Amino acid sequence: MNVTLLAGGVGGARLAHGLDLALGAAPTGKPAPALTVVVNVGDDTELHGLDISPDIDTVLYTLAELNDEERGWGLRGESYATLTALKDLGEDTWFTLGDRDLATHIVRTARLRRGEPLSAVTAHLAASMGVRPRVLPATDDRLATLVDTPSGRLGFQEYFVGRQHADAVLGLHFDGADAARPAPGVLDALAAELVVLAPSNPFLSIEPLLAVPGVRQALTDAPGRRVAVSPIVGGQAIKGPAAQILESLGHEVSALGVARIYAGLVDVMVIDERDANLAGAVADLGLTVHVTDTIMGGPPGRERLARELLAFA
Amino acid sequence: MNVTLLAGGVGGARLAHGLDLALGAAPTGKPAPALTVVVNVGDDTELHGLDISPDIDTVLYTLAELNDEERGWGLRGESYATLTALKDLGEDTWFTLGDRDLATHIVRTARLRRGEPLSAVTAHLAASMGVRPRVLPATDDRLATLVDTPSGRLGFQEYFVGRQHADAVLGLHFDGADAARPAPGVLDALAAELVVLAPSNPFLSIEPLLAVPGVRQALTDAPGRRVAVSPIVGGQAIKGPAAQILESLGHEVSALGVARIYAGLVDVMVIDERDANLAGAVADLGLTVHVTDTIMGGPPGRERLARELLAFA
Repeated sequence: MNVTLLAGGVGGARLAHGLDLALGAAPTGKPAPALTVVVNVGDDTELHGLDISPDIDTVLYTLAELNDEERGWGLRGESYATLTALKDLGEDTWFTLGDRDLATHIVRTARLRRGEPLSAVTAHLAASMGVRPRVLPATDDRLATLVDTPSGRLGFQEYFVGRQHADAVLGLHFDGADAARPAPGVLDALAAELVVLAPSNPFLSIEPLLAVPGVRQALTDAPGRRVAVSPIVGGQAIKGPAAQILESLGHEVSALGVARIYAGLVDVMVIDERDANLAGAVADLGLTVHVTDTIMGGPPGRERLARELLAFA
Repeated sequence: MNVTLLAGGVGGARLAHGLDLALGAAPTGKPAPALTVVVNVGDDTELHGLDISPDIDTVLYTLAELNDEERGWGLRGESYATLTALKDLGEDTWFTLGDRDLATHIVRTARLRRGEPLSAVTAHLAASMGVRPRVLPATDDRLATLVDTPSGRLGFQEYFVGRQHADAVLGLHFDGADAARPAPGVLDALAAELVVLAPSNPFLSIEPLLAVPGVRQALTDAPGRRVAVSPIVGGQAIKGPAAQILESLGHEVSALGVARIYAGLVDVMVIDERDANLAGAVADLGLTVHVTDTIMGGPPGRERLARELLAFA
């Protein structure tokens, strides 16, 4: 069985980890199930001349079980000597980069500058970290999420980290999307028996994936089962600004609002048991509804949710 | 008074520090004396996609009093978290890079890639570290010292760090020197009242400076006093492979051998009191000889030697 997950940062990384745990524990003797994680690159940025891919790194670090579980991003047990020295040299260090994390960015930057595509660099990093699933950037081309706010158009990291996603989001622009091509393997991965949309931010994580020409159509036409997990539980985002963005863009701030956005793209909508009252309205959209505990927490919760999703394949 | 020092790594950095201390303590009310340090770039290399200028950094760190005095190179109190992580990612980490040191290379690389010349980057780094003297690379262009050995032609850092300068040196080649131009300010700096050749390696540190077209001639024609300090004391190098290279290239391994190389380029040869017996032979080359304790050690020794040199201006 082939499984593909479309993922942004933390929520996507946790579900990727759960799927990896669940698939890795499959009975032996059968062909090994293959997990592909297609990751958003709209948050990618350059800092201090280094190419940073925050969502890819969160997915890699989580799959390698090197991630900082409490903080949600970055590596466990980090130190910050280089960042302190960068600050001493007059660099603007509003974006926290740990010493070990910097090694990832240094290697990525060196390989990209040598002409390697991001997908090849990502495969090298994944292999170096002992990551089992295939991790693919949505595209090897530049695709930058820009955020329109009352203060003007902001680069993604300026909006998200620099200004702590406090600005109202009036619209999103995926710069470079028109000319971007899906990274090798992305379209094929959408032909998997099961395609899962992670409980990531629909606008900041999933939309930029779908904005790569060919991806939305491939998902629409996908032959397998397509399952989305709502990132909104009880009217709130598990993490990040999804709720505010749903509201400011005129959507209902609920799992139903998310289901309306994903209708036509998925067959199954997974909503939290706290939102069981919305099951009927979601079903009215023509979607199969699965009500469960969607809060993953640590590895056991991730694996449990992943197993429920795998049952839909 | 203007003073210019031609410098390689550790020996050059220590004398630069001594001159800065001696000149900084000059009586107030007079115009501030200006020290320019022209630094070898033949050792510069790229590692992990980062541009490393070891001699410039040794000079900057020493002038900023941030250097590791015991080790001679790098910064005091370094940690190595990024290097460890680079190794975990499969990088070849034979060249030790501390976390704080890496910040220097990251900033340099980012600015060079933006099109800033190395001299401007160096000025920025010097200012950020509170370094008072002007520190100039010999050239903003690429000039790479290559070392011919019985095992073939080696890149400088491969010879020096990778193979611990154990190979016999059969010859040196300064790749790119023909097309290199002196960095802005270098030729003017050679018109200073005092020009000092640091007790650096004549072949690995001073020669690549002189190989930049125009520099050797400017030193030959310099209007001020030109003083060289022998890096060979009692037939041995204070640090590094200068003695072996003198021998393998057919020179006498002594302060006299060094004086023969520098004859015509300098007016005064400073030799160590342990080599007082060579004073007559050095004088026979037409050089003024100054015999003193040339082992600088810590800051007081550096300042003392610097004051003796300043007396020649």
